[in-house]
Amino acid sequence: MVAMDNLQMTSEKAQFSLSAYLQEHQSLVEAALNQAISVVYPEKIYEAMRYSLLAGGKRLRPILCLATCQMAGGTLEMAMPTACALEMIHTMSLIHDDLPAMDNDDYRRGKLTNHKVYGEDIAILAGDGLLAYAFEFVAVNTSNVPAERVLQVVAKLGRAVGAAGLVGGQVVDLESEGKADVSLETLNFIHNHKTAALLEASVVCGGVLAGMTGEDLQRLSCFSQNIGLAFQIIDDILDITSTQEQLGKTAGKDLQAQKVTYPSLWGIEESKSQAQQLIAAAIAQLKPFGDKAIPLKELAHYITSRTH
Amino acid sequence: MVAMDNLQMTSEKAQFSLSAYLQEHQSLVEAALNQAISVVYPEKIYEAMRYSLLAGGKRLRPILCLATCQMAGGTLEMAMPTACALEMIHTMSLIHDDLPAMDNDDYRRGKLTNHKVYGEDIAILAGDGLLAYAFEFVAVNTSNVPAERVLQVVAKLGRAVGAAGLVGGQVVDLESEGKADVSLETLNFIHNHKTAALLEASVVCGGVLAGMTGEDLQRLSCFSQNIGLAFQIIDDILDITSTQEQLGKTAGKDLQAQKVTYPSLWGIEESKSQAQQLIAAAIAQLKPFGDKAIPLKELAHYITSRTH
Repeated sequence: MVAMDNLQMTSEKAQFSLSAYLQEHQSLVEAALNQAISVVYPEKIYEAMRYSLLAGGKRLRPILCLATCQMAGGTLEMAMPTACALEMIHTMSLIHDDLPAMDNDDYRRGKLTNHKVYGEDIAILAGDGLLAYAFEFVAVNTSNVPAERVLQVVAKLGRAVGAAGLVGGQVVDLESEGKADVSLETLNFIHNHKTAALLEASVVCGGVLAGMTGEDLQRLSCFSQNIGLAFQIIDDILDITSTQEQLGKTAGKDLQAQKVTYPSLWGIEESKSQAQQLIAAAIAQLKPFGDKAIPLKELAHYITSRTH
Repeated sequence: MVAMDNLQMTSEKAQFSLSAYLQEHQSLVEAALNQAISVVYPEKIYEAMRYSLLAGGKRLRPILCLATCQMAGGTLEMAMPTACALEMIHTMSLIHDDLPAMDNDDYRRGKLTNHKVYGEDIAILAGDGLLAYAFEFVAVNTSNVPAERVLQVVAKLGRAVGAAGLVGGQVVDLESEGKADVSLETLNFIHNHKTAALLEASVVCGGVLAGMTGEDLQRLSCFSQNIGLAFQIIDDILDITSTQEQLGKTAGKDLQAQKVTYPSLWGIEESKSQAQQLIAAAIAQLKPFGDKAIPLKELAHYITSRTH
């Protein structure tokens, strides 16, 4: 019987195709994002918002949210507005981070950055517009979910992007620039806030929308914080090992800026090993969810095996 | 009997002291704002957020929200988190508008602007942090209000600050800069979005939190859009007639920038008369609410009589 069960599980696992899953969910997210913002007067701001929002990208945050909601017994429909909001927030943070007063980047996802196309003023406003719209979008469009849960999502999103999340991480990142003596503790703070906080919100909001509570949410939080940090370690490694063409953004920027990164503290091999350990710890948290967690597990593996 | 009623009403009206009302509500709002943000690591971002949030100002938006909630039968406690969020959003819009890439202002409320003190990068992030926190704050701290109403407030706030509100108004304002042929229609668009939208949200959210619906909310919306436009006309007039000391910000900036304003289209006297007509139309909307609307009415008069 045990052998049969194992066989069945293996066969179910074999049936799961990550690339098909990614493709399907990516195109659902693309369609929803495309529908979310129409171009009306004053056209320039809506075009600027759409330019960055629809510039491609892996849509990892929306997909994590959708996958978690489905794992927890919810539907795609319940999570889609939050999935879109996560991408709006992520896009806003990229637009503002790329500004001359911040990281001063000219390219993002292989395209000119927002301020290079629309000017700094419009880029700042496009970010503000996307951030504000993210909350409006969740509040207005989430259906078949009790209002209390939607409010929890609003709170979680706000916290993930504000000074206790993304913004706080970016501040410490800016303060650490050009310093050679950044500690591991500070580096962890930066990435736990700049990267992991929004990934955590993506996963946990998916669970909240489907009605998860207590220990289950704790497990999701732990899972996503671990993959968030692993994601950043891989990002640091790719900055060294990839070409600009592969990354779609300026490569080798960290080295050039003499930025302390995980590979600069640990070396590339140890960084890879640490990322693998984080992924393993993350996946262990999903055990109680059984086979329903296969998509989330595969997404976690995908994060460590990506080359750009 | 009618004479008695009138006498009683007059006597009740005489008992209402706007200056006492403003002082009392201002200090409640100041205390709540001061409590809302603690300074923790990384201190700089919280200090920057507090610097602008606690830089004084009339707290007109929070007070409109509190006054409306009370008029509609709600409590101060129900509306205070939203009142604080309105001031966070307003402050964020000032910080971003003052940036070199936008209006490039060095002074605001008699103090150096945020980016002059903390740098452009931190000023952008402080604005982002305040905007995100506004939504978190409402979602987490609003008590004794059904979640559905709080979600309506989140949606209303998001719309008021995004591309359909403040951000859209600022875009058209930037586009109109240096143009001598800006139409009245465009000027109205700018101020209906840049100023009136958030004032409208302040009033309407106060009503929503207290449970108002339908025609009553429509009246509040009409009231606040009218006072929003009147507010802006007065602001334009004050830019011409006040000194920098009185304004606490650079005076005569519109003239210097050759900006089209209501006084430049209508002259100062006609502008004053238009503002008075808008206030009268606004106050007419409050008639069904009777004496309970006295604070809102007096606030509307205060807006047109202010000198800075």
